[in-house]
Amino acid sequence: MSVDLHHHGDRDVAPGLVDLAVNVRLPAPPPWLADVIAASLHDLGRYPDAAPAVEAIARRHGVDPACVLPTAGGAEAFTLVARGIRTSRPVVVHPQFTEPEAALAAAGHEVGRCVLSRESGFRLDPHAFAAGGAHADADLVVVGNPTNPTGVLHAAAGLRSLRAPGRLVVVDEAFMDAVPGETESVIGTDLEGLLVVRSLTKTWGLAGLRAGYVVGDPAVVAALRSVQPPWSVSSPAIAATVACLSERAVADAEAGAMTIAADREVLVRELASVGLRTAAPSDAPFVLVDTSPLGVGSVREELARLGFAVRRGETFPGLGPTWVRLAVRDPQASRAVAAAFVELGRLNRVA
Amino acid sequence: MSVDLHHHGDRDVAPGLVDLAVNVRLPAPPPWLADVIAASLHDLGRYPDAAPAVEAIARRHGVDPACVLPTAGGAEAFTLVARGIRTSRPVVVHPQFTEPEAALAAAGHEVGRCVLSRESGFRLDPHAFAAGGAHADADLVVVGNPTNPTGVLHAAAGLRSLRAPGRLVVVDEAFMDAVPGETESVIGTDLEGLLVVRSLTKTWGLAGLRAGYVVGDPAVVAALRSVQPPWSVSSPAIAATVACLSERAVADAEAGAMTIAADREVLVRELASVGLRTAAPSDAPFVLVDTSPLGVGSVREELARLGFAVRRGETFPGLGPTWVRLAVRDPQASRAVAAAFVELGRLNRVA
Repeated sequence: MSVDLHHHGDRDVAPGLVDLAVNVRLPAPPPWLADVIAASLHDLGRYPDAAPAVEAIARRHGVDPACVLPTAGGAEAFTLVARGIRTSRPVVVHPQFTEPEAALAAAGHEVGRCVLSRESGFRLDPHAFAAGGAHADADLVVVGNPTNPTGVLHAAAGLRSLRAPGRLVVVDEAFMDAVPGETESVIGTDLEGLLVVRSLTKTWGLAGLRAGYVVGDPAVVAALRSVQPPWSVSSPAIAATVACLSERAVADAEAGAMTIAADREVLVRELASVGLRTAAPSDAPFVLVDTSPLGVGSVREELARLGFAVRRGETFPGLGPTWVRLAVRDPQASRAVAAAFVELGRLNRVA
Repeated sequence: MSVDLHHHGDRDVAPGLVDLAVNVRLPAPPPWLADVIAASLHDLGRYPDAAPAVEAIARRHGVDPACVLPTAGGAEAFTLVARGIRTSRPVVVHPQFTEPEAALAAAGHEVGRCVLSRESGFRLDPHAFAAGGAHADADLVVVGNPTNPTGVLHAAAGLRSLRAPGRLVVVDEAFMDAVPGETESVIGTDLEGLLVVRSLTKTWGLAGLRAGYVVGDPAVVAALRSVQPPWSVSSPAIAATVACLSERAVADAEAGAMTIAADREVLVRELASVGLRTAAPSDAPFVLVDTSPLGVGSVREELARLGFAVRRGETFPGLGPTWVRLAVRDPQASRAVAAAFVELGRLNRVA
């Protein structure tokens, strides 16, 4: 199946719509963070110095500075992996964020896919990567946790067990800071054979700034560093990275994660009340909804006419047009979109 | 000769020194530009949309939008060239900015060098790339214009004549906007086989923001676009790009270029008055100085003790420790550094 791996939620949004398509929590950074970024503008004549970000990331995660590298968002991290890691059998676990596969393909790699099934609840079976499994020979595995777009949170132990001699396991934790306690993060004292990609974009309203980082095996991080363009992370992004990893900001993110969890419960309940189910229990700031009970194929355009932008499912390998991803918003938005689904079903019956 | 291709002027600067090492004209963007950048922060929750920058670049240079691509500074452009262009015989004209060669090497290419001689005034002889020349088989040629660090401005006609079937000529015009009238830019109606790299960093005090672009053969630009990570240019950098290419900003840059030319005359005269010559007539916002008459080897550390940071010459292929690059500053700074050179010669005679 050929899908547009470069399609992202931002292209599903149009002016005037309630945006449930893009997984960014805030329309802009909070005032205290905006102030930090604005202050960095006074020194823009200088080339960026990433050292303070390296230090902040290492301190935040309790790892050695050699294990971290700031990146221009998660997207750059995947490009660095595709360019800097020697691989002949890369495998991407789908459905998931499509940029890792797109970056690997752009770098000339033939990318294998491990497509999780709906029947399994889009849960990963580590045996697929063990001896005798379908992907036993994979030397690079990319998996999202929690997974975009399914919302599934894989167990850290299971992800760690994917490691094997000569294999790198890349875990995209772009949404992990929206999981209370970050319980299943694989960041820890044992980073051998692991690379974690983190984003500051979603929680802090920084999609436009390009701020993220990787944490992992120091040999892997060194390989990425060697192919990163100089000054790749801008001075404002460096300032934001330092600020978003302060103790206070991390505590704020944790509080935000609790709110998201509560808001997600409301969304799931509202959807259930109109006969719609999510693909699996979600631990992410979004849910993947099965709209097939509505019997209308893709609901995206009709929902847009009713004022709601949602992320289409058909550009995710393993999904199709009857799946849509909804960002978790406040209860009012959740009730409104559930009502829109009802309206849409009614329109369909009339037509 | 093995040199540190990743050494740049920003590493030759230390707090408290008069900075003649970094070629950035302003310590920060001017207030009107800072306001534009600050305004872009209110919308940072959105992913970057580079379309307005594409349009502004195309309008500014009178070319089709298919011929342009905004980049995260010139450094990203060189990485995209190294990754996106098929080449088996790349040649870099030296001495020049070392990132193009570093990016090609990081991408696994074996890079040939065309090292211009001091005797030739560091001027390029296009015959070296014609049939029978030493680099006749080059399929990728990278040359700076005006050249960093020599300051030499090559004739546009000579650079255009480097083109040949199956060969791409990349012209780094990072400092062209500091040349009054941009007389020797190769940007024009005939872009076949050409790629021009431009920077907004130097003239506008934006080194920390990462803003630049390429203009060239649409087939080449498409190849670079296909390997650029998504959202590579941040929203503030896009806003700055649009602003710096307005008619008013271009006129401001032109006025600034005239000031630089006048200030450079003062610097060259002051250096001559203390017995020092530049490598060649410079058309750039910097000059390359031959310090060998002082008989002290590298003068960099001693100049730092006297309060002046200069860019070392020994990390440029084709140069050595008796060359230093000085940024053009105001007449007062030029007189002061000339006096420092005198002091340094005196110290040397005493010792």
